[in-house]
Amino acid sequence: MTDIPYHAPLTTDSLRNLGIPEPWTIGFADRVRFTELDPLGHVNNAAYLSWFENFRLQYMDFYGAPLTGRDAYMVVLRQVQVDYLGEMKLGDDYVVTGRTTVLRTSSFQMEYAVWSGGALRTTSTAVLVMVNEDGKCPIPPKLRSILTTRDGAISA
Amino acid sequence: MTDIPYHAPLTTDSLRNLGIPEPWTIGFADRVRFTELDPLGHVNNAAYLSWFENFRLQYMDFYGAPLTGRDAYMVVLRQVQVDYLGEMKLGDDYVVTGRTTVLRTSSFQMEYAVWSGGALRTTSTAVLVMVNEDGKCPIPPKLRSILTTRDGAISA
Amino acid sequence: MTDIPYHAPLTTDSLRNLGIPEPWTIGFADRVRFTELDPLGHVNNAAYLSWFENFRLQYMDFYGAPLTGRDAYMVVLRQVQVDYLGEMKLGDDYVVTGRTTVLRTSSFQMEYAVWSGGALRTTSTAVLVMVNEDGKCPIPPKLRSILTTRDGAISA
Amino acid sequence: MTDIPYHAPLTTDSLRNLGIPEPWTIGFADRVRFTELDPLGHVNNAAYLSWFENFRLQYMDFYGAPLTGRDAYMVVLRQVQVDYLGEMKLGDDYVVTGRTTVLRTSSFQMEYAVWSGGALRTTSTAVLVMVNEDGKCPIPPKLRSILTTRDGAISA
Repeated sequence: MTDIPYHAPLTTDSLRNLGIPEPWTIGFADRVRFTELDPLGHVNNAAYLSWFENFRLQYMDFYGAPLTGRDAYMVVLRQVQVDYLGEMKLGDDYVVTGRTTVLRTSSFQMEYAVWSGGALRTTSTAVLVMVNEDGKCPIPPKLRSILTTRDGAISA
Repeated sequence: MTDIPYHAPLTTDSLRNLGIPEPWTIGFADRVRFTELDPLGHVNNAAYLSWFENFRLQYMDFYGAPLTGRDAYMVVLRQVQVDYLGEMKLGDDYVVTGRTTVLRTSSFQMEYAVWSGGALRTTSTAVLVMVNEDGKCPIPPKLRSILTTRDGAISA
Repeated sequence: MTDIPYHAPLTTDSLRNLGIPEPWTIGFADRVRFTELDPLGHVNNAAYLSWFENFRLQYMDFYGAPLTGRDAYMVVLRQVQVDYLGEMKLGDDYVVTGRTTVLRTSSFQMEYAVWSGGALRTTSTAVLVMVNEDGKCPIPPKLRSILTTRDGAISA
Repeated sequence: MTDIPYHAPLTTDSLRNLGIPEPWTIGFADRVRFTELDPLGHVNNAAYLSWFENFRLQYMDFYGAPLTGRDAYMVVLRQVQVDYLGEMKLGDDYVVTGRTTVLRTSSFQMEYAVWSGGALRTTSTAVLVMVNEDGKCPIPPKLRSILTTRDGAISA
């Protein structure tokens, strides 16, 4: 993955050039750091959750639906599953891809994947809940529309 | 949870006294630290994975089957699912309980739970794979016996 | 350090019993976790800063001058120096001691030490600045009085 | 700092274009992540130590004197001082610059700086000790030569 632009939105063409297949249409690249390694020299299992969290923030920003700052949408992680398919090491470049697959009344399901060296290293699914100051609340129509249009998310 | 002994194995009677029900028979207590909080002031979702990892090390040590040091059993995390049921804050005392439920040829399934203030805050299931220098390997009979006897794990 | 009470204020007698000398009069104990290790199997250099931060919160709480919550004193870390004297490993019990040594108009100096297995492992000095919503502000008289009385801090 | 190349060595011309003055001749850029924030929404004080550690690894790699892998030079951090000059927030781009200033028999002194948005945010000095399996050892002539030639480090 030479000349991969880190921290920038990678859209469909860029992802395909990196060998990342459909249905992924948005990703962000970064590089493994020393502080993410465990005593065995591999990326620690908890670090991936931070990568997915970072993806969510960048992805929603890019979609015009920010999760931080004034007027941000507030979501909380309700459930996450991670499948660790291959180890990752110091200095490995990687791309995190993600998308929203299902929209319910007040929660939505996302999928993530981590790609490195041309291989799929980790996959994940998550359930996020929309909240306001009073607790759980319906997904706002504007956000529902964005995730339907951009990601092809299905309302269920 | 007054006078809870941190970092020490809490066995059945201690857990019941803390209101932690069957089938849990082993747990370890600790307290939420500042560094585990996210910008919203809650324990970050990734921190729980570190708690479960720390549980595994203490639990296997207590069972006489250490995961670190010379002659340690080598296991890798293959899959984890976490359900976040309630927020946790700075200074909260908590107990992580865990047990092995199913033993396959070379992998086993574990369950975890986090308890705080008399309530269940988080649950998790994980699949761990037994490895040696050459890769995946069968669970050694001694370890299989320990997990069957101690936890009632079922060979499947 | 058998039967050391973790996460509880250890005052002068307890510290002396653990072999921790004058001038230290307050400390908090904890145990090294897996997530604090670096790939060499030693506690990572950054983890100690989190320990000192955690000490500050517990220490100020114990002194009745909380740094978190409603009506908390707001301080920011302006400078820190750490001397790493000896390595620490997984499962090591340790005590962090700390005290305020010098009070200036709007900043104060603290010292920290980490003790484990009867030996001094790390020392540190820090400069903290008192702030409010508008920026730097004088140390409130009540806090100045507490730190003078409790720690023998000198106004300079 | 538009179009800043992350994770790549930034040499003298690139640094000057970014407004980073002499004597700095090597730096690496990155962006603040969510996991580095503390509950106040600023980069946590401990995160900077991880940035300096990450700098050291990239810098020594670039100089042909790797600190990881087979035949790596082994160094341990003996002392570090950090001055926090300005807060940093989520998504801030930054450059860490560093250099070796003084070479002693078996230790050397480094300086670091963090630059963001055209301003100096953090400075640091560190003392690192050369070690082998038996403990402290002299700085190898090749490494001494590299650091003298590249950084103008002075033998003291």
